[in-house]
Amino acid sequence: MRNTFYTVGLVCAALISTKSICHAQETPNLDSEALQVREIYNEVLRNAKCYDWLYNMCTTIGPRLSGSPKAAAAVEYTRDLMESLELDSVWLQPCVVPRWERGEKEVVRVVSSESMGSFDLKGVALGNSNGTGPDGVSAEVIEVLSIDELKKMDDADVDGRIVFFNRPFDVTLINTFKAYGRAVDQRSSGPVEAAKKGAVAAVVRSMATGLDDIPHTGVTQVSAEGYNIPSVAISTNDAELLGKLVANEPVEVFIRTTSRLLEPVTSYNVIGQIKGSEHPDEIIAVGGHLDSWDLGHGAHDDGTGCMQSLEVMRTIKAMNYSPRRTIRCIMFMNEENGLAGATAYAAISNENNEFHLAAIESDAGGFTPRGFTCAADGDLLEKYLSEVSGWWDVMDGYDLFLQPGGSGADIRALQSQGGILFGLRPDTQRYFDFHHTDADRIEAVNARELKLGAAAMTSLVYMLDRHLNSKR
Amino acid sequence: MRNTFYTVGLVCAALISTKSICHAQETPNLDSEALQVREIYNEVLRNAKCYDWLYNMCTTIGPRLSGSPKAAAAVEYTRDLMESLELDSVWLQPCVVPRWERGEKEVVRVVSSESMGSFDLKGVALGNSNGTGPDGVSAEVIEVLSIDELKKMDDADVDGRIVFFNRPFDVTLINTFKAYGRAVDQRSSGPVEAAKKGAVAAVVRSMATGLDDIPHTGVTQVSAEGYNIPSVAISTNDAELLGKLVANEPVEVFIRTTSRLLEPVTSYNVIGQIKGSEHPDEIIAVGGHLDSWDLGHGAHDDGTGCMQSLEVMRTIKAMNYSPRRTIRCIMFMNEENGLAGATAYAAISNENNEFHLAAIESDAGGFTPRGFTCAADGDLLEKYLSEVSGWWDVMDGYDLFLQPGGSGADIRALQSQGGILFGLRPDTQRYFDFHHTDADRIEAVNARELKLGAAAMTSLVYMLDRHLNSKR
Repeated sequence: MRNTFYTVGLVCAALISTKSICHAQETPNLDSEALQVREIYNEVLRNAKCYDWLYNMCTTIGPRLSGSPKAAAAVEYTRDLMESLELDSVWLQPCVVPRWERGEKEVVRVVSSESMGSFDLKGVALGNSNGTGPDGVSAEVIEVLSIDELKKMDDADVDGRIVFFNRPFDVTLINTFKAYGRAVDQRSSGPVEAAKKGAVAAVVRSMATGLDDIPHTGVTQVSAEGYNIPSVAISTNDAELLGKLVANEPVEVFIRTTSRLLEPVTSYNVIGQIKGSEHPDEIIAVGGHLDSWDLGHGAHDDGTGCMQSLEVMRTIKAMNYSPRRTIRCIMFMNEENGLAGATAYAAISNENNEFHLAAIESDAGGFTPRGFTCAADGDLLEKYLSEVSGWWDVMDGYDLFLQPGGSGADIRALQSQGGILFGLRPDTQRYFDFHHTDADRIEAVNARELKLGAAAMTSLVYMLDRHLNSKR
Repeated sequence: MRNTFYTVGLVCAALISTKSICHAQETPNLDSEALQVREIYNEVLRNAKCYDWLYNMCTTIGPRLSGSPKAAAAVEYTRDLMESLELDSVWLQPCVVPRWERGEKEVVRVVSSESMGSFDLKGVALGNSNGTGPDGVSAEVIEVLSIDELKKMDDADVDGRIVFFNRPFDVTLINTFKAYGRAVDQRSSGPVEAAKKGAVAAVVRSMATGLDDIPHTGVTQVSAEGYNIPSVAISTNDAELLGKLVANEPVEVFIRTTSRLLEPVTSYNVIGQIKGSEHPDEIIAVGGHLDSWDLGHGAHDDGTGCMQSLEVMRTIKAMNYSPRRTIRCIMFMNEENGLAGATAYAAISNENNEFHLAAIESDAGGFTPRGFTCAADGDLLEKYLSEVSGWWDVMDGYDLFLQPGGSGADIRALQSQGGILFGLRPDTQRYFDFHHTDADRIEAVNARELKLGAAAMTSLVYMLDRHLNSKR
């Protein structure tokens, strides 16, 4: 493309397009608020630090598995960042997290296939699963495409075998999170269901959009439910191959994993806030989760959400904005394999009779933001949405949708306080190329896309602070 | 992000949301047409060949500078592809293209700066510029931030010097094409304006969104306007550095380029079509440009648009759809440095009294599609838009906007025939990280994003074929 000029004025779409009369604290002057939002974008796009912070965390600390020394280092790093921003208060909130370790490099090996002999598959142990130990386990593989299919099988046909869950993502679903949602039961619940029928191990096709050679880890419930079979994910290319093999001949696979669950340890949520000038008891929270899996850098999951949330705070301070409500930033610990941080945060918040008027989580990658989904209890959703859609036009030009939907695993428990929860929704197409893998590295993050998400979050925080009334 | 399920139902936004009564050939049953569009997406997302074709072209042919042997190979490659699709007719349409060659690796060197001594900058000759020849040229550098600033200078202050155009992209513009549009005059017209004032060479800051080490080539008008000064682009990091240097001290730069314009040669547009069953004289065209710059693979610019256009044809054939209008696919030659293919195509089309009811160009990268811009002459735009917006709801769920704007350089001349022109508009954030550089390689293309663009184009072609009336 050469010298193409064309008008941009990208269109802002709100599902709820009915403009209701706005009952906000003050009648918003949308023109002047649109200018404020423009200033927020300018500040973030020109001066954001979120990419540099993420780069530093990824390259000097790396992945941040709950309970690991690196997770502890990330707690210190982000606490230091918050303190450098001169927030009104910064603190650590203890939570007891599971501690899982992968152990040695896994072996997942086809040991006898008539057509192809013996060869290794690219596999990784699933999070929270206990390993085979040094001797490994070897058995014939049976393929199933769903847990239902497994449940219908005779126990005798499963007993002593390795169950291989091989249902791919539905590539026709436009939003890849939807495809993930429809496939991930194989990873989370597949191994335990296999164990119940006497399987000696479980192999899961990686939760990936396309075909590649990268195995994706992620949590499985097998140990939590008291079973103890080794559970691994293999790359989608290897899953295709293994599926073809088992369709044609008996295939024996050898698995050796030394992963294990250790004693839980104390870790921390990292929290900082700017106290509200008018309604300090009404909290608007932003956050992501600081922990990650142990592969790659945990860049998109969820280093990006953490650094975008910190960027919200930096931008508020840099613009000398004095919020009416308390703006709080939370780095949640242990989203990946326990939600211990989110659970502790909600419990303490409820104990203290706190009220989260709104909370925004960014935990869907650092790609170009497409909009926000939002959730609230019962009738509250319609009431909040009616109000927010009354001023959503200030987001014109940033191409951000607003629609009902989930928020985020870390903030979901806050919904019962009667506020409104939001999830930042970036473009989803590339997310599951990286999710929970060695490829989720800083190189996969585009600085500008990351900043645009932070600008969207900051703008939403600003508008909520200025114009959202509690509907409790 | 873990097991987050949320409703997708992505919102489709049409700028023109007023639903007019549809005067189409038949009143569209939007429910059944939405199912057809869904089938198109399913076919493309499951079975598309566009990525494989692009991969082959990038890795076996590579870049396709007009008039080069590789461009000729790409003509053959895409003709073969069209023939393999068993279109009703496939032909080559001659056009005379300029032939430019880069010559040896360029030298752009700071030869005397008191603070930093001598060092090389990362530079590339600008397209269609003649080089310094083997001896090179050396002179003091003066920096300007705009052509206006240059024009206001005394000729004596420019004469014998090297003019350095150093205005960056405005990063606060959300759409990077807008930032490009506001900066690119420095590259296209800067060198000739410098030459008019006696400069001995021009150095242009690369047309890039951010700071990096990759120089971006692109066409400049210096030779076309009869001037002959060497013209190079340097990376944005080097432009920052050079700008700081010249602000503080006299800086002499040495440039050596051996680029040159050779005699024009005959090349070809590659064209294939499926003849319409009811209105064969009404053409709906899809296309991209087959030529590229000589750096990288010309992947996003515009291999992706070519292969998406071919995918439209493959999908129509695979679905056994018999179009009412003639569906034509055009690989335009020489968009980058002459538009010879587009000019020849429009001239011959007009000679033959053809009527392009619609044309869609994809030449803005292979990223996630965000929508279409559209253009038509005078009142026709409103009339067409009113009709198209009447059935744009069939695009619900694919998150595609429709708004007035440019179409594409290759199809623009067809607008005078009285049809409607569209440009596919993908996400713009990453495009100018790659545009016209060695980094525009197949590795920068995501297969799924590419396919989504092809599916959007095919769906639009289908709906236009079924439901658009001529407004001439």
